[in-house]
Amino acid sequence: MANNRYHVAVVGATGAVGEQMIKTLIERDFPISKLTLLSSARSAGKTVQFKGETITVHEAKPESFEGVDIALFSAGGSVSKQLAPEAVKRGAIVVDNTSAFRMDPDVPLVVPEVNEEDLQKHQGIIANPNCSTIQMVVALEPIRQKFGLNRVIVSTYQAVSGAGNQAVQELYSQTKDVLDNKEAQAKILPVKNDKKHYQIAFNAIPQIDVFQDNGFTFEEMKMINETKKIMHMPELKVAATCVRIPVASGHSESVYFEVETDHVSTLEIRNLLSTAPGIVLEDNPSEQIYPLATNAVGQRDVFVGRIRKDLDEKNGFHMWVVSDNLLKGAAWNSVQIAESLIRLGLLNK
Amino acid sequence: MANNRYHVAVVGATGAVGEQMIKTLIERDFPISKLTLLSSARSAGKTVQFKGETITVHEAKPESFEGVDIALFSAGGSVSKQLAPEAVKRGAIVVDNTSAFRMDPDVPLVVPEVNEEDLQKHQGIIANPNCSTIQMVVALEPIRQKFGLNRVIVSTYQAVSGAGNQAVQELYSQTKDVLDNKEAQAKILPVKNDKKHYQIAFNAIPQIDVFQDNGFTFEEMKMINETKKIMHMPELKVAATCVRIPVASGHSESVYFEVETDHVSTLEIRNLLSTAPGIVLEDNPSEQIYPLATNAVGQRDVFVGRIRKDLDEKNGFHMWVVSDNLLKGAAWNSVQIAESLIRLGLLNK
Repeated sequence: MANNRYHVAVVGATGAVGEQMIKTLIERDFPISKLTLLSSARSAGKTVQFKGETITVHEAKPESFEGVDIALFSAGGSVSKQLAPEAVKRGAIVVDNTSAFRMDPDVPLVVPEVNEEDLQKHQGIIANPNCSTIQMVVALEPIRQKFGLNRVIVSTYQAVSGAGNQAVQELYSQTKDVLDNKEAQAKILPVKNDKKHYQIAFNAIPQIDVFQDNGFTFEEMKMINETKKIMHMPELKVAATCVRIPVASGHSESVYFEVETDHVSTLEIRNLLSTAPGIVLEDNPSEQIYPLATNAVGQRDVFVGRIRKDLDEKNGFHMWVVSDNLLKGAAWNSVQIAESLIRLGLLNK
Repeated sequence: MANNRYHVAVVGATGAVGEQMIKTLIERDFPISKLTLLSSARSAGKTVQFKGETITVHEAKPESFEGVDIALFSAGGSVSKQLAPEAVKRGAIVVDNTSAFRMDPDVPLVVPEVNEEDLQKHQGIIANPNCSTIQMVVALEPIRQKFGLNRVIVSTYQAVSGAGNQAVQELYSQTKDVLDNKEAQAKILPVKNDKKHYQIAFNAIPQIDVFQDNGFTFEEMKMINETKKIMHMPELKVAATCVRIPVASGHSESVYFEVETDHVSTLEIRNLLSTAPGIVLEDNPSEQIYPLATNAVGQRDVFVGRIRKDLDEKNGFHMWVVSDNLLKGAAWNSVQIAESLIRLGLLNK
């Protein structure tokens, strides 16, 4: 089986995440026999270079998935809802990077460092969690395993690429306009299809995705609900405030958490995370070493630093967690799930 | 006394805050008989327009304060430590915007909406709190008064102008370089005199001011200690993570707090803050109404929105607090203290 090669499809191949999926498949030398690139009708016809080959992007249709072994979806929730079942029907396993199936009890929601074993229960579709959730649970899981966890409060500093390539173009063009003393035009952020749009250049927008009736945004509810599901802790207290800032790529998070074990020290948490999977510890205040979005871009790891004990709450700690939202937050976690499926013998030919 | 006019000195007149102090004195039509503008030797000789008059900035020296009634200091902690006592010795009342005297038990630390009465105890020097502290306590004080308060966890999204005009220039020149695909040069942020400097353009830097032995930065400790002092609550649990983001002016804050009273609703907190002094409530999720840094710039108010109840902690709430860090966070709060001193009859001729 180690020598098997697979027919891989990328749905949303021309998007911000799709581009990174293709790049990650190359970097990981993923065992591909055939690569099918799919998109909306609008982007069909574009070509993509893959290992010296020119591949034309085709419009995603049910029949596109004939013969596909594994399909990585990142073309929006409505595309996934329509086409992921069609892909499964044709024998493909789907790794879906949208929110379409994440909270479906029959769909595993997987971050391999945290709950790879949930892949065993898959019924064709595996959901890739939200970008801001993934990097946080990678950092929290080793702590939960060793010291227990009963509370998380996170405030995010999220990059614009999470809203797609058009949003990044908007950030850059607005930024240029502000520098040129022109009025910035806002047409996409915070949420493309919402009523109002606000300038992201030199600003901080406390809205990512649409508002829910409880006053939280859907992005915040994703962080709350997905964290509980991935960590198998429905009782975990989680609260989130999700904020978009003028960064192109690289999400940062200010995470407060409380452990169950008494007398845990900052040093113990540092030591634990320094050898934990998927994590790079960057935590030396006296040398001004801490994670930065600009350093995380292009890296597959989750960077953790600024770990310190709360001054009042005996089991409370703070940390700063940074990762490339397009890689570990999306493309890399999806490819990593595909690698896990192969390793666990779940992607049979 | 209402007709009295005062000899006012601004120390640090050419800095980011000093410029806003002069502008605020004009806007408030502060009763000035004479305006003395002071600075370091480096900036002396510059001229400033004030109500049609051209005023030359002079080097600040002990004798500069002869005849001055009230001196607004914002030229760095070492200047304040050296010259504020000299000003007091010569009969001036000092409102100091540096951290030099804030935690001195003999020096009132004042946000007029919160603890104006502390001005009564002044012994010549009154400290103006840190920018990020001021806007938070303005938002928290009405809540504390009505419902009690026992815990605060804040993550900040702080603007670059808090680090001075040079830092803003650095933000703009780095931003231009990144847009032009050039390497960004970092020489000032995060802390001018610290060892390392990092790019702020399209980044988030989790360091404001220098690190303390406990792993918190001095900025974070200012928020923690000053909040307790201003609110007269040494037992209040406060934790802060202070982060610089690529915004020129306007600090934003994600604030989690727990009240003492049970069964408080989001609506009650909204209603309370809608009529509280110094606050503008901007909180209507269904219309995407929430505070934004870009809207707060040039405004003296503190803007509060995104108020919502925590989903797990029965007395926990979240909110988003935004204000112009150079105005309510610095210049306006200082001038407001001067106005309070006059109104309370504490600035006698």
